Order: sequence, then C-alpha cells, then structure tokens
Amino acid sequence: MSSLILNGHEVRDRIFADLARRVEETGRRPGLHVILVGDDPASAVYVRSKGKACEKVGFTHETHILPADISESSVLDLVARLNADDSVNGILVQIPLPAHISEEKVQRAVLSEKDVDGFHPENLGRLLAGHPRFVACTPLGVQVMLEHYGVTVAGKRMAIVGRSVIVGRPLAMLMTLKGSAANATVTICHSATSDLAGVCREADIVVAAMGVPGFMTREHVRQGAVVVDVGINRVDDPGAKKGYRIVGDVAPEALEDWASAYTPVPGGVGPMTIAMLLRNTWDAMVLQQG
Amino acid sequence: MSSLILNGHEVRDRIFADLARRVEETGRRPGLHVILVGDDPASAVYVRSKGKACEKVGFTHETHILPADISESSVLDLVARLNADDSVNGILVQIPLPAHISEEKVQRAVLSEKDVDGFHPENLGRLLAGHPRFVACTPLGVQVMLEHYGVTVAGKRMAIVGRSVIVGRPLAMLMTLKGSAANATVTICHSATSDLAGVCREADIVVAAMGVPGFMTREHVRQGAVVVDVGINRVDDPGAKKGYRIVGDVAPEALEDWASAYTPVPGGVGPMTIAMLLRNTWDAMVLQQG
Repeated sequence: MSSLILNGHEVRDRIFADLARRVEETGRRPGLHVILVGDDPASAVYVRSKGKACEKVGFTHETHILPADISESSVLDLVARLNADDSVNGILVQIPLPAHISEEKVQRAVLSEKDVDGFHPENLGRLLAGHPRFVACTPLGVQVMLEHYGVTVAGKRMAIVGRSVIVGRPLAMLMTLKGSAANATVTICHSATSDLAGVCREADIVVAAMGVPGFMTREHVRQGAVVVDVGINRVDDPGAKKGYRIVGDVAPEALEDWASAYTPVPGGVGPMTIAMLLRNTWDAMVLQQG
Repeated sequence: MSSLILNGHEVRDRIFADLARRVEETGRRPGLHVILVGDDPASAVYVRSKGKACEKVGFTHETHILPADISESSVLDLVARLNADDSVNGILVQIPLPAHISEEKVQRAVLSEKDVDGFHPENLGRLLAGHPRFVACTPLGVQVMLEHYGVTVAGKRMAIVGRSVIVGRPLAMLMTLKGSAANATVTICHSATSDLAGVCREADIVVAAMGVPGFMTREHVRQGAVVVDVGINRVDDPGAKKGYRIVGDVAPEALEDWASAYTPVPGGVGPMTIAMLLRNTWDAMVLQQG
C-alpha cells in the first residue's frame, strides 16, 4: 500500500496565495510585529522566516530585536506601545525569553485581540469554552491540513500523544468541537499513559507531539491509520552538510507503506504553522478594523 | 461484588468542616455574592442552598435578586460595583439569564480574581495552559471526590462522555495535568462518537456527563470499573411526592454489584459542586488579600 503524503509546503503555498490575493483585491495590508530578545540562533531563523512569509503575501512586518539583558519592564513597555498602535495587527513574542523575563507575564501583556499566536489565556479559554477566536498555530495547522486532504476526523478516533500547551492540549480542545473538521473522539496520551502503543493502535488518526525523535513505531500505529507527526527534532548526522538533520517523533517504518497517509518531517506540519500565523494576522486585522 | 459508594454528602461535610475551622481559627470570613435574575424556581433553590452553605461555614453572603426584565447594562453595572468592593471575594452569576442578556458578556465582566465559578475565559485558559487558578466547581468536585476515596486516576484510562464547558471539557483538561490526582489517559466522547459503548468499556473510570437519564448501561461500563455520574435529570414519577424524581445518566444496572465504585444520584457529585464553590471562595479571598 502506497501512502498519501500530506504535503505542508503545498497547503502553505495555497494559503499564502489566498492571503496574497486578499491583499491584492482589498489593498489592506495587515501588520505583524515580532519581538525577539537575545541572540538565540534558532529563534533568529524562525523570526527571519516569518518576515519573509509576510513579504511574500504582502503583509507589513517589523522585528524588534532586543538585547538579552534587557529588563522585563522594558519588554512590557514595548508590548504596551505595540498594543496601542493601530498599524500593528498581530504581536508575536518569540520564545524562549531569557530566564529573567517571565514568558507568561509578557504573553499575557499582549492584547488578546492581537495575540495571533493564540497563547493568551483569554484565547485559550475561548477555545476551551467552544467559541475559539485565535487558535494556536500548530493545532490549527493540523486541522487545516487534514481538511485540505479530505481526511475525515468527525466520528473518528484520534490519539494525541503529548500534552503541551503548544500542541497537545489545544489540539484536543479543537478536535472535540462540533463541526465537520472536528467532532473527533480524542484520547490524550502522555508520559504517564500505560500501554501507550495499545492505546494508539485504537486510533484512526495518531498525532505524535511529544518531541522524542523516532519514538513512535509500527507498535503505535495500526496499519492504514493516518499519522500526523508534529515533532521537529535535530539529530546528529555526520554525513549531513550541517552535521545534523531534522526528524520527527515517528520512525520511518510506521509511515511509508504502513500509514494510509502521513505528514513528513520536514515538510509536513512545520510549514502549516507559519501559514496559520499569517491567517490569524489577517483575521486579527479584520477583528480590529471590521 | 458489592460496590463502594462515593458519598458526596460525606466529602462535602468534611470540606465544610475544614472551611468552618479555617474561619474559626483565623477570624477571616470570605464574602460570596450571587446575582440572580428573574424568578426561575430551580435557580432560586440553587441560590438558597448556596446561601445556607455559606452560613454553615461562616462565610458572609448576599444574593442580589434582579427582575427578569432588567437591562443588560444594569446587570453589568452591578457586576462592576461588586468587582470594586473589597468585601466581595467571590461573584457568582446564576445561569440561565433571560434571553435578552448575554451570559458570556456578564460572565466575562466578572473580575477573573473573583470568578469562583471558574468560567471566565481567563480561568479556563489558565486551566488549559496547565497552571489553573479557579477550576469550574463540578470538574474540581469530581477530582476531589476520587482523591478522597483513594480512587487512583494516574496512569488509568478515563472516558468522559459529554463535552460541555461546564463539565466534560474542563474535566479533560484537569485530569490530564501532571500530578497524583490527575495524570489520567483521557478520552473525550460525545454525540458524534462511534461505538460509544466500546470506547467506554476500555476505561477504568467512566464519567457520564451528557444529561440523558439512564443512558449508560452495562454495555458502557466494564465490570469493576469506577463510574462517576454527573447527570442530574428530573424524570416524572407519579408515585413520588413531588411528582418527579432525580436520576443520573447511568442506569442502576451498571452501578450496584457491577461497578467497583460509583457516585449515586442524588448524593454523589451534586453536593461536591457547592463544596468546591466555597473552597474557591476561600481561595479567592486569600488571592486577593494574601
């Protein structure tokens, strides 16, 4: 059995094209502002790619690069200034922040109407309550990806492995909402789950989001199930040009010729996250300006 | 096999005794204010029982009874006044509200630090994010009840049937947190779940919270499982003094001599809800005053 590959680049490109068309047709250009504290190289890469994505679709963007030893109150001052600026539709605080700055405090300071990351307690609470506004980008990306490829989740069993606030917990809340792209019967699995493999084999759709390279094997995936691999792990690879490569949480044996469909790593869920960030930014502009 | 009865009256009375002791020892008396709009008889009964509970443990309380045709803005004015009043530690808006008043708007207007009901988006969001403050009273009551009777949930499978924001969704978020009274592997089931009975039979603990009298049978409960029945349904009973009686979501056949332990209806989860309301009110006072 050959497996359908759920191609995140393809879906992302369609979403980018749709957003670019909206900008073109309406002349409206949402503004995304990113706050980057310190000089973590991985964060710098992420932030640059967000800027490039904005340029691609015609959004305005600005990155505020702050020194690693900046005070928490100075970061909060910047957030307050961006909150008050009507040209700023979305604000994203790149994590991790240096240890002396409270991530929770800074994220809570962002106006929930500009929280395009979806991590403000107000937005998480709306999702739990069943009337979401901005949903965290990775869970939303999983939903949009599955919908794009016609993978039915309604009435299906989904095992989500991992209970982070970034992926597992909001995804469980999203997938159990009513509606055609949701309505799944979701099991939330984690480090304390007994017989994880057995629980996962009950599922029609397995979502791996625990951040352990190649952890999930055929033991965890019923043949013919759909696999969504959210893991982005760097593993040493002396043969690779950079000395490492990126792998997911699912071993190759549980994907090709085993799963009926799967998201590759890289090129699966990863590109969706940034697409959802831009879509949330567009929605934020509409929310703020009507 | 005789079943252990998880007696909500007993646990509630212990919690009341503990709170009364705190009041006695510290001389501090938290204040709970309830807003009741209109003259729904069931709401009036609930509100009276909350007042009585406050008196029992030595909390101060006040019920603000407003006419059914009051404007939304007048209700919001009252909320604002109570928010600003330091003697008010907890504010509870009794639902349902009349149709011309937005429940969401009024509940959001309550200061999240005084939201002892746990339904403010901020408090729901904190629960989703994994650092809960005020947890909704019924889910919290389920947790405290199971802990009291030594029912282990960590590492166990729990099926929650029902996805309301009052019970099912917050309970799933609570039970999948880390910690000894949580750490369960939770499956969220609902009206779109296929083979509900089969899914429920996988569980060590079944929580029935869909509000359909006697819906769950032995088909849904593996022999020896623990059953938590959150349903409170009124069914006609010409033989009863009031012409009705209160039944749960689980049929008697799936409880006595079938479950290893269960919460009866009435007298199971019901009494826990009010106990958690008072405990949240105490915690709110401590949060506000230190």
